[in-house]
Amino acid sequence: MNLRELGEDRLLAKIAPGLPLNRSVIAGAGDDCALARFPGSDQLLVLKTDCVVEGVHFTRAAAASDVGWKAMARPLSDFAAASAVPKFALVTIIAPAVTQVAWLAGIYRGLTKAARCFDVAIVGGETSATRGPVCISVSVAGSVERERRVSRRGGKAGDELFVTGRLGGSRRGKHLRFVPRIAEARWLTKHFRVAAMMDLSDGLGADLPRLAQASRIGFEVDDSTIPRTRGCTVEQAISDGEDYELLFAIAPSESSELEAEWRRQFPKLPVTRIGRLVKSSGGVRQKLRTGYVHFE
Amino acid sequence: MNLRELGEDRLLAKIAPGLPLNRSVIAGAGDDCALARFPGSDQLLVLKTDCVVEGVHFTRAAAASDVGWKAMARPLSDFAAASAVPKFALVTIIAPAVTQVAWLAGIYRGLTKAARCFDVAIVGGETSATRGPVCISVSVAGSVERERRVSRRGGKAGDELFVTGRLGGSRRGKHLRFVPRIAEARWLTKHFRVAAMMDLSDGLGADLPRLAQASRIGFEVDDSTIPRTRGCTVEQAISDGEDYELLFAIAPSESSELEAEWRRQFPKLPVTRIGRLVKSSGGVRQKLRTGYVHFE
Repeated sequence: MNLRELGEDRLLAKIAPGLPLNRSVIAGAGDDCALARFPGSDQLLVLKTDCVVEGVHFTRAAAASDVGWKAMARPLSDFAAASAVPKFALVTIIAPAVTQVAWLAGIYRGLTKAARCFDVAIVGGETSATRGPVCISVSVAGSVERERRVSRRGGKAGDELFVTGRLGGSRRGKHLRFVPRIAEARWLTKHFRVAAMMDLSDGLGADLPRLAQASRIGFEVDDSTIPRTRGCTVEQAISDGEDYELLFAIAPSESSELEAEWRRQFPKLPVTRIGRLVKSSGGVRQKLRTGYVHFE
Repeated sequence: MNLRELGEDRLLAKIAPGLPLNRSVIAGAGDDCALARFPGSDQLLVLKTDCVVEGVHFTRAAAASDVGWKAMARPLSDFAAASAVPKFALVTIIAPAVTQVAWLAGIYRGLTKAARCFDVAIVGGETSATRGPVCISVSVAGSVERERRVSRRGGKAGDELFVTGRLGGSRRGKHLRFVPRIAEARWLTKHFRVAAMMDLSDGLGADLPRLAQASRIGFEVDDSTIPRTRGCTVEQAISDGEDYELLFAIAPSESSELEAEWRRQFPKLPVTRIGRLVKSSGGVRQKLRTGYVHFE
């Protein structure tokens, strides 16, 4: 069997249980970010790697600086999901030997711009020539206070579900120029008890069931409340993917205050209540308009 | 101008000065490992990424588990050079969609074996399908005590130069199965004041001038003392590369004790004095048998 037939997700599921761990690891492969103890520190070390591949995550029609921005912004969006502070990045670029240096310089301009926006230092990496398509792999290290880390796992029945921004239509351009919601995530965990959080990379229709499954719980969403990018249908808002907005769950006792404070803090970015987490019995199927998703 | 014409080293030299840094960074791109402060800790965070590419660092004739071992061992060898302790690894594999899953499982076996040898946890990563050759990128995070970190930069006139193991002939197999000298480096910095250190990846003839240049100093080597792999000529020991042994400089007052203690501690691995660092006037050229190397 080859990689195409098995699929990347199933390969990871097959391999992840056998990966070596050590006593410092708190969260490893399979979580949005890895978390580990660092000697002598109260804070946790946070690690994430992500790559963008030509023909999968961008085309050669895209501006090189946009591609560089996206390559850096994707792992930073995972830091936002964990309420972590990114600090250092390592960049590996694999490109055909015939790649124009001016194009590579554009990639670095985009990487650098995104890094500077979030005070991330680019501390190493390499460029390697191959025959294949361009791949840009970015590994990011940073930190999070133990009491402020968030994952997909902590959702409870009754928690209300919110998303930031507007969903859908990202392929028209936003997927190359999105802003990782790090400031918003850090503000949220400073002022509220966020039960569970993730970033929306594959679309609400794929990602919300993952959050619910990680929290071993069900969900109810009112499709009509989902905030849509202008010109997008509900289906597109649910299914397009690459929104890189935050999806989070918070106790109902905090949600009204959250909405009011958010408007003051981030007047240009909406936050929208779209539903809630509910008790789920084993094997229940729950519907988002894109179709049914099975729960364990 | 394209990547082949410019070359990867010159691209890095062009780009490195413009990369963003922040106040936590102590050593960035251009050093063997990146070093940075971590909040609340006396120890430094150490980061390194390295990739192996099919057709450059291995061929499909190699056993998959050997390729996986090498992919993990290369960045670990850089940790040895810095006297750092590796702890966590992120692995990105880019491979053609037709790659056999059994072969990828072999890669992971090798990665895992090398990680376990050094108590490194594999905490994340991904596999992405492309049309190009196989690339395996491994990013490693770890730590080092401030007073035990070593770089290429600290060599002084009079320091004696040592190498571990035997050099040359690595392409016959050792390049796939070498053991990063982490235990040896940690022992060295626990018991001795190591002035400068690096791992030999491109061969003594290329790497020693780099250590000397980073320390702004010259060197003298007696070719006849260079420890050679059985069957190798001096030229091969100097030029073959991929030895992944340690090259280090230490004050002459410590070197006799070092030799005696080393034999007790590592009876199976030789350490050999090959020469010393000497004052160098600007523009001096110094000879290793492979040719002349220019010094600033």
